[in-house]
Amino acid sequence: MRTVEWTPAGVRVIDQRVLPGSELYRTYTTCEEVAEAIRTMVIRGAPAIGVAAAFGIALGVRASVAAGEDLPAAFERICQTMAATRPTAVNLFWAIERMRRQFEHLRAEKTPEALIAEALVAEAQAIHAEDIATCRQIGRHGAELIPDGATVLTHCNAGALATAGYGTALGVIRAAVEQGKRITVYADETRPFLQGARLTTWELMQDGIPVTLICDNMAGHFMKLGRINCVVVGADRIAANGDTANKIGTYMVAVLAQRHRIPFYVAAPVSTLDLTLETGDGIPIEDRAAQEVTHIASVPIAPAGVAVANPAFDVTPHDLITGIITERGVAYPPFTVSLRRLAAGT
Amino acid sequence: MRTVEWTPAGVRVIDQRVLPGSELYRTYTTCEEVAEAIRTMVIRGAPAIGVAAAFGIALGVRASVAAGEDLPAAFERICQTMAATRPTAVNLFWAIERMRRQFEHLRAEKTPEALIAEALVAEAQAIHAEDIATCRQIGRHGAELIPDGATVLTHCNAGALATAGYGTALGVIRAAVEQGKRITVYADETRPFLQGARLTTWELMQDGIPVTLICDNMAGHFMKLGRINCVVVGADRIAANGDTANKIGTYMVAVLAQRHRIPFYVAAPVSTLDLTLETGDGIPIEDRAAQEVTHIASVPIAPAGVAVANPAFDVTPHDLITGIITERGVAYPPFTVSLRRLAAGT
Repeated sequence: MRTVEWTPAGVRVIDQRVLPGSELYRTYTTCEEVAEAIRTMVIRGAPAIGVAAAFGIALGVRASVAAGEDLPAAFERICQTMAATRPTAVNLFWAIERMRRQFEHLRAEKTPEALIAEALVAEAQAIHAEDIATCRQIGRHGAELIPDGATVLTHCNAGALATAGYGTALGVIRAAVEQGKRITVYADETRPFLQGARLTTWELMQDGIPVTLICDNMAGHFMKLGRINCVVVGADRIAANGDTANKIGTYMVAVLAQRHRIPFYVAAPVSTLDLTLETGDGIPIEDRAAQEVTHIASVPIAPAGVAVANPAFDVTPHDLITGIITERGVAYPPFTVSLRRLAAGT
Repeated sequence: MRTVEWTPAGVRVIDQRVLPGSELYRTYTTCEEVAEAIRTMVIRGAPAIGVAAAFGIALGVRASVAAGEDLPAAFERICQTMAATRPTAVNLFWAIERMRRQFEHLRAEKTPEALIAEALVAEAQAIHAEDIATCRQIGRHGAELIPDGATVLTHCNAGALATAGYGTALGVIRAAVEQGKRITVYADETRPFLQGARLTTWELMQDGIPVTLICDNMAGHFMKLGRINCVVVGADRIAANGDTANKIGTYMVAVLAQRHRIPFYVAAPVSTLDLTLETGDGIPIEDRAAQEVTHIASVPIAPAGVAVANPAFDVTPHDLITGIITERGVAYPPFTVSLRRLAAGT
C-alpha cells in the first residue's frame, strides 16, 4: 500500500474514503484536483496532507510553466489553493512554506523555469522520503516508552495512511513490535469519519498486530477495567506550550488517561510544531459538514434536518500530555522549553 | 407515538431499530416474541424493558391457562424466558418480581386461573400507567435543577422511547420546558446503537425542543468551550452507594463533567435501585454482538474479521454524580443514606 506517491502520470493516492471495503487508487494531474482530494479527505492525516500539498504545488508549477504563465503570480495562486483546503494541520502550511523557500531560492538563482518545475518535483519527493524516515525515527524513540506486553490505545489513524508511510503513533507501535515486544492495540473507531474502524484496524491487521476495535465511548470503561497501559496518538498542530490539536475525541481520551494515571503520548514530526502559537487557544478548529455525522456510507442515521455540530479536531492541554515523541527525541514537560530545544535541533 | 402498549391483538411496540427512518409498529402475541424483541432491542430503555416484560408475562400466562398447562411451572418458565433477555437493567427483574408477587397473591387467594390471567394483564397495565406517572414526577423534581437558558447534554435515549412515555432524563428536560424555561439540548449520538442520533433527536424535534446532534467524542470539546451547563442521563441499575450503570459512554461523560465542574444528574425511577448491591462492581455488564459495531444499517464499516469489544453499559462511580433524580425526590450524597431513604419512601 502506498498512501501517496509521485508517478509519471501524476500524484497517485489511495482513496481513504472507501477503505477498507475498496482499495482504490486515484491519480491526479492538477493541483486543483489534489486540493479537492485533501478537502474531501481522499487523503488525510497531517503529515500525508503536507506531502500531498507539496506534490500538488509541483503539479501546479509544472502546468504553469507549460502554459507560459507569469510564474511568481501562478505560484502564489497555487499555494493559496493548497492553503485553503484544511485549516488545522500545520504540516500543510509547513510543506507550502518549504516549497516556497525552494521556489524563491531557485528564482534567486535565476534557474530556468522548466528546471524550476522539475526541482520542485524533486523537493516534493524529498519531503515524501524524509517523512518516511522521520516516522521511523519517531518509532524508534517512541518504542522505548512502550513496555513489553502493553496494551496501547490509539485514537483516529496516525499510521502509514496518515503519513508517507510507517506512521507516527502506529510507527511507535510498529517499532515496538519490531523490537520483539508483544503489543496489543485498542483502536477507537473515531467518529464521524471512522478512521480507527476503517484505517487503523486495517493497517494493523495487515501487519499482524493484534487490534481490538471499540467505539469512542468505550475507552473510559476499558481504562477503568485496567485493560489499557498507555495511549499514543498523532497530532495536527502543537503549540509552543505543548497544547496539541488532534482528531476530535483526543481530548476526551487524555482526560480519561489522566484519571486512570495512564501515560498519554503524542507522536508527531517536528513539522507539526507551531511555535508561533503560545497556546492551543490560537489553533483554528475546522468545522466539517453535518452530513459526515448524519450519514454513514450514504445511509441516514438521524432525522432529516437535525442540527449538527461537527468540529474535526479538539485541543488537548499540555498538562494532560506525558511526552511528545518526535524524530529528534521525546519532549517532556515543561514543553515550552523542551519543544523549543527540539525545534532548534539542539 | 406509543413506545409499548397492550392491545386486544397483543403487545404493540414501535420498532426502535428502524427509527427515525421508519415508524413501524409490531404486535406480539407470545411471551417468546416479546423476549426476542427485548433481546434484539426492538424495544430498549430500562423502564420500557420492565413494562414490556410485564406484558410478556401476561401474554404467557394467558396462553398457559388456555392450553391447560400446570400454571406454577409455566409461570416459572415464562419468568425465566423474560429474565434471560438482558442482564443489566434491573427494572426488568423488578417488573418480573412484581408480576410474581401478584401471581402468588392470586394463587394464595385461590383465584380461578382464567381470572389470574386477566388480573396479570391488569397488573402489567398498572405498571405501564405508573411508569408514565413516575416519569412525570421525575420530570417535576428534576426540572427544578435545570436553570433557565441552560444547555443540557444527554447521552443515549432516556426519553419516551425508553419508558412507557415522557421519559426520565428527557422527562426532566420536557418538564423544564413546560415550566417555560428555554432549554437547548446536545445529544450524544451514542454508538453503536445510535440511540442519541436516531431516537433522542427524533423525540426532541417532535416536541420542538432545540437539539444539536454530536458524536460521543465531541462532548469534552463542547464542555471545554463552556457550551454545556449540565448533564442529565438515565440509568439501568443503581447500586446502594449510588454507582450507576447506564449506556456505554456515560462514565466518560461523567469524568468530563467533573473536570469541567458541570453538574451531572442521573434521572431514574426507584425501580432502578438495586440496594442488594453495595457498589457498582457487582452489576453485570452485557456484552453484545460485534456486528453492532462493525456494521451500520447493514453496511460494513470495518475490516471483515476484526476483533471487537462491545460492552453495552459502563458504571459511573457515585463520586461523579451530583444528584439522582427519582419520582420521590432528588437523592444527594451520601447516596448510601439518601437512596435507602427514598427506597423506603421515608
